[in-house]
Amino acid sequence: MSASTESSPNGAADGAGKPVAASISSIAAEAGVSVPTVSKVLNGRPDVAADTRARVESVIERHRYRRRRARQSSRPALIDLVFHEMNSAWATEIIRGVEQAAAVERAAVVLSELGGAHRPRREWFDDLLTRRPLGVILVLAELDAEQRHQLATRTIPFVVVDTAGEQPPGVPTVGSANWAGGLAATRHLIALGHRRIAVVSGPTTMLCSRARVDGYRSALEAADVPIDPELVRYGDFYVHGGYHHGLALLDRSDRPTAIFAGSDFQALGVMRAARELGLSVPRDLSIVGYDDLSVTEWIGPPLTTVRQPLREMATTAAQMVFTLARGERPPNERIDLATELVVRESTAPPVRP
Amino acid sequence: MSASTESSPNGAADGAGKPVAASISSIAAEAGVSVPTVSKVLNGRPDVAADTRARVESVIERHRYRRRRARQSSRPALIDLVFHEMNSAWATEIIRGVEQAAAVERAAVVLSELGGAHRPRREWFDDLLTRRPLGVILVLAELDAEQRHQLATRTIPFVVVDTAGEQPPGVPTVGSANWAGGLAATRHLIALGHRRIAVVSGPTTMLCSRARVDGYRSALEAADVPIDPELVRYGDFYVHGGYHHGLALLDRSDRPTAIFAGSDFQALGVMRAARELGLSVPRDLSIVGYDDLSVTEWIGPPLTTVRQPLREMATTAAQMVFTLARGERPPNERIDLATELVVRESTAPPVRP
Repeated sequence: MSASTESSPNGAADGAGKPVAASISSIAAEAGVSVPTVSKVLNGRPDVAADTRARVESVIERHRYRRRRARQSSRPALIDLVFHEMNSAWATEIIRGVEQAAAVERAAVVLSELGGAHRPRREWFDDLLTRRPLGVILVLAELDAEQRHQLATRTIPFVVVDTAGEQPPGVPTVGSANWAGGLAATRHLIALGHRRIAVVSGPTTMLCSRARVDGYRSALEAADVPIDPELVRYGDFYVHGGYHHGLALLDRSDRPTAIFAGSDFQALGVMRAARELGLSVPRDLSIVGYDDLSVTEWIGPPLTTVRQPLREMATTAAQMVFTLARGERPPNERIDLATELVVRESTAPPVRP
Repeated sequence: MSASTESSPNGAADGAGKPVAASISSIAAEAGVSVPTVSKVLNGRPDVAADTRARVESVIERHRYRRRRARQSSRPALIDLVFHEMNSAWATEIIRGVEQAAAVERAAVVLSELGGAHRPRREWFDDLLTRRPLGVILVLAELDAEQRHQLATRTIPFVVVDTAGEQPPGVPTVGSANWAGGLAATRHLIALGHRRIAVVSGPTTMLCSRARVDGYRSALEAADVPIDPELVRYGDFYVHGGYHHGLALLDRSDRPTAIFAGSDFQALGVMRAARELGLSVPRDLSIVGYDDLSVTEWIGPPLTTVRQPLREMATTAAQMVFTLARGERPPNERIDLATELVVRESTAPPVRP
């Protein structure tokens, strides 16, 4: 790819409508480098010294130079989907959602797993810049400030599928209604007649864990059920967390009659704990999950859960990336999609002693 | 991308060591088209009439022209991973396997789902040619003869992760030992004392289904247990298949005491059928799955299953693609990896009446 496609002084004709303050040659002059060097930086080529690259980027940033991103037929349209770790049916839902939106735009989906693949972060990011995707979708994976800056100077937008509920300022996100999900799960159990209701949420460090617990609290308070701090637990969102806390909760003499398990995996863990203690679900214990993974419909008994619309969240995030890549602003850059209670067979009224 | 990178008459310097019979200009002359048109065909550009493209391809094929595939630092290295449908934890294992091998080669993984994404096949294939990946990995997705031919003329190798056991002639495949898996599952049940053992395999149209059933038959024959054709069923590898055949088998007066369920999903279906009929697993019924998906460890009871090394199969297939992309021959182009019985809690000796 020669420099000619990048060196247009009319780089802002990409729909954003911002004034262009500098051509690629004036940027080169101001940074004290050659035009090809500026082009290399814009193209994400690795063969530029780090300090040179930083100098060029700061000039680019100062002049708000925007590269023309006209689609060339010989250049494939890519969208990058980046997971911190990709370890379940959960990831598949997100991949399918992105695939669906990408198919409409005729873009190919590049998938990376940062935690699992042991891909050196620096190399991975250099390669990302080299392939110049239309944009990037992040799932529980974070970019540092410098990386965000590097994407910004290359007009590569990114959007976070915000399953954690953390929303860094200025970053477009698609999340879901965690608080409302916790509320709905707990209300359902209260309506069945439960009063000893425990919650096993995710890590305290994740806002979505706290939001779900707060929804749980609000439902109990609204029903005048006192909150027992012993029944509020924080796990890891994986099976082990549900198993561990499930054993501890169910081993108590004043054991709960219902557990809101915070995730479907934790619900599997709680079920296992119940099984090992000889408790039958839902007769002796009602369990509500969270996520609505496809497998939960089939386990024994089929799981009552809060549906988190992972696929729709991913589709929405991808559409947002494509909108931003065209230089347009999406109508809303912070979206939470609704969660929904799905009642199956793991919940029932408590047996009165 | 100009024609210059493609027009080298020394196109075969890619390690395959084959003689070069034609330059790009002689191909153009013979096909009666311009040099840029030949370049467009090689680059997978869509703006070439179908009959022109076919004519150029046949000349290329006749002269065994091989494009130079020297890696340019400005061109991102891609490997395409193509699923027919991507609907479970099963797919995640394969994705992670490919990711692992791609990280080593510093290539990015492009993911496509043909069945689910409703991506028009023609468009998708044109886009694949445009992005010129180092190679393609197919999972239960098939290319037609013309598409295979188009990849061959562009020296884009492809390898099939052969979970179905179908091996089209001349196509490099990585599969697993289906027959041995069926044998091991059935031997385990015989060793526990079972004699009424049913099998619910996948579709009869898939060779892997037949291989697993043949392994089942061989184990029974070796143990002098007569084969009852009523106990040999073919499902769909999904939960519904296991549920449907499970109900039919378990409703019989001479119901089996053990079922080899052919896949973990079908095992979930059989478990559900048993639950609905009031049968306890493993007391009243032993169940063996196939695949060893991560969730099977956690369901109730944890599933005895045959581990199909999906991740390793995917890693091996990707390594094979990279080897072929370098113009080298892999030591073996048809590999079956071993399967392994994993004994958990869904199998036990039958209760003697």
